Amino acid sequence: MFAEYMTMVHEVHPLVHNITNYVTVHACANLLLACGASPIMADEEEEVEEIVSLCHSLNLNMGTLNLRTIGSMKKAGAKANEQQKPIVLDPVGVGASKLRTDTAFKLLEEVDFSVIRGNLSEIKMLAQGSGKVRGVDVSTQDQMSKERILDLARDFSRSTGAITVITGAVDYVSDGTQTYCLLNGHPLMGKVTGTGCQLSALLAAYVGANKDHKLEAAVTAVALWGLAGELAQRRMTSQDGNMTYANYLIDAVFTMTVDQLETEVRYEIH
Amino acid sequence: MFAEYMTMVHEVHPLVHNITNYVTVHACANLLLACGASPIMADEEEEVEEIVSLCHSLNLNMGTLNLRTIGSMKKAGAKANEQQKPIVLDPVGVGASKLRTDTAFKLLEEVDFSVIRGNLSEIKMLAQGSGKVRGVDVSTQDQMSKERILDLARDFSRSTGAITVITGAVDYVSDGTQTYCLLNGHPLMGKVTGTGCQLSALLAAYVGANKDHKLEAAVTAVALWGLAGELAQRRMTSQDGNMTYANYLIDAVFTMTVDQLETEVRYEIH
Amino acid sequence: MFAEYMTMVHEVHPLVHNITNYVTVHACANLLLACGASPIMADEEEEVEEIVSLCHSLNLNMGTLNLRTIGSMKKAGAKANEQQKPIVLDPVGVGASKLRTDTAFKLLEEVDFSVIRGNLSEIKMLAQGSGKVRGVDVSTQDQMSKERILDLARDFSRSTGAITVITGAVDYVSDGTQTYCLLNGHPLMGKVTGTGCQLSALLAAYVGANKDHKLEAAVTAVALWGLAGELAQRRMTSQDGNMTYANYLIDAVFTMTVDQLETEVRYEIH
Repeated sequence: MFAEYMTMVHEVHPLVHNITNYVTVHACANLLLACGASPIMADEEEEVEEIVSLCHSLNLNMGTLNLRTIGSMKKAGAKANEQQKPIVLDPVGVGASKLRTDTAFKLLEEVDFSVIRGNLSEIKMLAQGSGKVRGVDVSTQDQMSKERILDLARDFSRSTGAITVITGAVDYVSDGTQTYCLLNGHPLMGKVTGTGCQLSALLAAYVGANKDHKLEAAVTAVALWGLAGELAQRRMTSQDGNMTYANYLIDAVFTMTVDQLETEVRYEIH
Repeated sequence: MFAEYMTMVHEVHPLVHNITNYVTVHACANLLLACGASPIMADEEEEVEEIVSLCHSLNLNMGTLNLRTIGSMKKAGAKANEQQKPIVLDPVGVGASKLRTDTAFKLLEEVDFSVIRGNLSEIKMLAQGSGKVRGVDVSTQDQMSKERILDLARDFSRSTGAITVITGAVDYVSDGTQTYCLLNGHPLMGKVTGTGCQLSALLAAYVGANKDHKLEAAVTAVALWGLAGELAQRRMTSQDGNMTYANYLIDAVFTMTVDQLETEVRYEIH
Repeated sequence: MFAEYMTMVHEVHPLVHNITNYVTVHACANLLLACGASPIMADEEEEVEEIVSLCHSLNLNMGTLNLRTIGSMKKAGAKANEQQKPIVLDPVGVGASKLRTDTAFKLLEEVDFSVIRGNLSEIKMLAQGSGKVRGVDVSTQDQMSKERILDLARDFSRSTGAITVITGAVDYVSDGTQTYCLLNGHPLMGKVTGTGCQLSALLAAYVGANKDHKLEAAVTAVALWGLAGELAQRRMTSQDGNMTYANYLIDAVFTMTVDQLETEVRYEIH
């Protein structure tokens, strides 16, 4: 099933509007180019409606949230909704501050998202108001059994209408009916800043190019990124560290073939 | 002719003040160091006049344009003009929003630029108010014959007094009298974010160190960057993608010799 | 002595709150991950007190200083002081503008820093109000004999109560009583943007994980970064330039062992 959604991204060449943080933005831009999409970053409230109108999808990332761009996120979100363009939310660090929590809840209230991607702490926080957030990483207190994560993903999708993506050692992608568990990936990804942000950007490209098959598109993006983590790791020498690995991740998306993805992807459906 | 302008950059070691976007800024800073210059990034209105006074040239880039720094661009521009320091304008995405278009026209009105660099859509937009801008890339509707691009470059230079640099498969550099067509480069450059921004920073370094030979300096910078695109490509293995290529581009500028540039540059004069 | 402080960082896995510039922030984040810490970047005044409360230490960097985040720096600093969390100050470009100079002095007045790191021009400026700052690099007029630098480091530490780190060909680390001269490093580091910013982030991780041994922790961080500069250089091929070197620096921190550091560090105590 992955081939067709990957091919669509290369054919549609989606333009993705990102309102995102200044930490990982450069990697997100190069990753979007690597996957066959094009990035545009624009966050000034005055122009975001015009910019999103040129694009196939919108990616809202709360990484370095600030008062100046919250209004931009809302306006861009409203316009994208009006034009039925998919929107991805990456609620980075929700729960770590009142500002982040309030903003995330406000965005959920005002904007219809196609995909919401976070780690377990972030999604739990959004779903239940009870995640313990340790900065932008998942809290060790937030370990949950697979069964409970499956329930969380399904229920959160049902209540929001968005595809839920919970990333970690196993990645979960649910539309409220079906939930995929994606088994690709590598622990080294946790040693690179912004692997979550980059996946959110990739998701925006994939759902932007595959509007009628959002679940499958999201699954493909998550599978592709997990496999990139494995392919990048296979190139590592003893002198290479997390920075070279970060570069190899993007390279792997650039060079990945449909066959490679079809052959190496590992998943279950629940 | 290239040797002397390249040598001057290494001797003068120009300090370049950049008011630029947060997407490609890290690459611009390392590229400036690679070419023998030094970067300083400062965008607060209150300090830009002092900062530009310390520098050899100014690079204004509209990539993530925002209301906070438009005033900074104007103030820095006015001060650089007063001190007869060269200024480069990179009107990223002009035409994609009213804010960008208005800002670009305002800057053209208030500031005398030494160099204006954009892709064909951006320069057409500035020159004729009719470019179709697809985000930050050139629109496919903007294909023009070589003759018409030569006319555009020449006429735009005459009307602005700035050297016009139109980048694409072929790069055009005109001062309104002479126009150079630079033939170096590689299509992979289009798969790296900010190759345009980086060239604008390089142009600022080159005209900053060669104030009395701006056309030749601009031609050298464009040639150097195009050749870097070729040298970087020659290092690529089957596993390397656009991110490794992005790194190799900067490496190629760092390691390039005068002889290499003189030997491998390809151009025509019109 | 280095082994135990390095081990502590890997055991404590400190979370470092950074209010920093948008030029080198991505490298700082990956470096923090490389050394065994975790980064969080958050600069909105409304949330910085909550964010710093989650962290082990705070890193304030004036690289792209702007009015919006000066208040954030002060608030985060006050909260960190209240909670007795170490704070690092990197006064990038102090002396280059009134805004930077005033802000640095204001921060010194209001916040108790554990470590202040700068190049010779910056520390001289802070100590004596007389450094000649050439952008963000050290001015050639600021050459001083080793004896005078030792005096400066010691006196500045005594007057501020902070550990002073003056970086250059030789790095000086003083607590006002003892001063270490660290001899590791490589000139290529000057060709990479943000090697100073990255060291400041590393210092924040090290003092954050070693609160009771701040001098030794700071010395270890400086030694580690200098040695990373040497290890990275040894990997360079004739085609590699400053960008690959930048990546290798972070890789070297990621792969470095306690033994390697103990064996290769070179220093004197004064």
